[in-house]
Amino acid sequence: MTQFMDVHHGMAGITAEQLMHAHQADLAIEKQEGVHFEKAWADPASGTVYCLSQAPSAEAVQRIHERAGHKADEIHPVPLSV
Amino acid sequence: MTQFMDVHHGMAGITAEQLMHAHQADLAIEKQEGVHFEKAWADPASGTVYCLSQAPSAEAVQRIHERAGHKADEIHPVPLSV
Repeated sequence: MTQFMDVHHGMAGITAEQLMHAHQADLAIEKQEGVHFEKAWADPASGTVYCLSQAPSAEAVQRIHERAGHKADEIHPVPLSV
Repeated sequence: MTQFMDVHHGMAGITAEQLMHAHQADLAIEKQEGVHFEKAWADPASGTVYCLSQAPSAEAVQRIHERAGHKADEIHPVPLSV
């Protein structure tokens, strides 16, 4: 398992409720791919959302995001953290 | 205080030790601007580093990063998180 940071653009105006629902949609199906979404942060002004996860691969992260209806624009493994 | 996510590009090949030293350089002077750097994640392959902080403004975050020798390429307020 590796930690991943993924980024979604084009989410301008996202509300706290929409972020919560999107995160819950991921959590509801994440076990299908052995992924765990740990945290998400949103900037409604620029429309950027960051998600931190533990997953077997970037493709597994993307499959969950796609099935939940919000494909990521970038997915980076972040094996280093401090 | 607002939470911020900032992004550094061009850090390909960064090591765990370099990430730790960069983070410690921020922590050593963060109080000058009332900033607190909470966490940082790095992708050595793409050369991307993400930093999460609490700060009074994006400019305050940037001033600390500049003084510590690693200006951020993007700084986004992330007032929403889940």
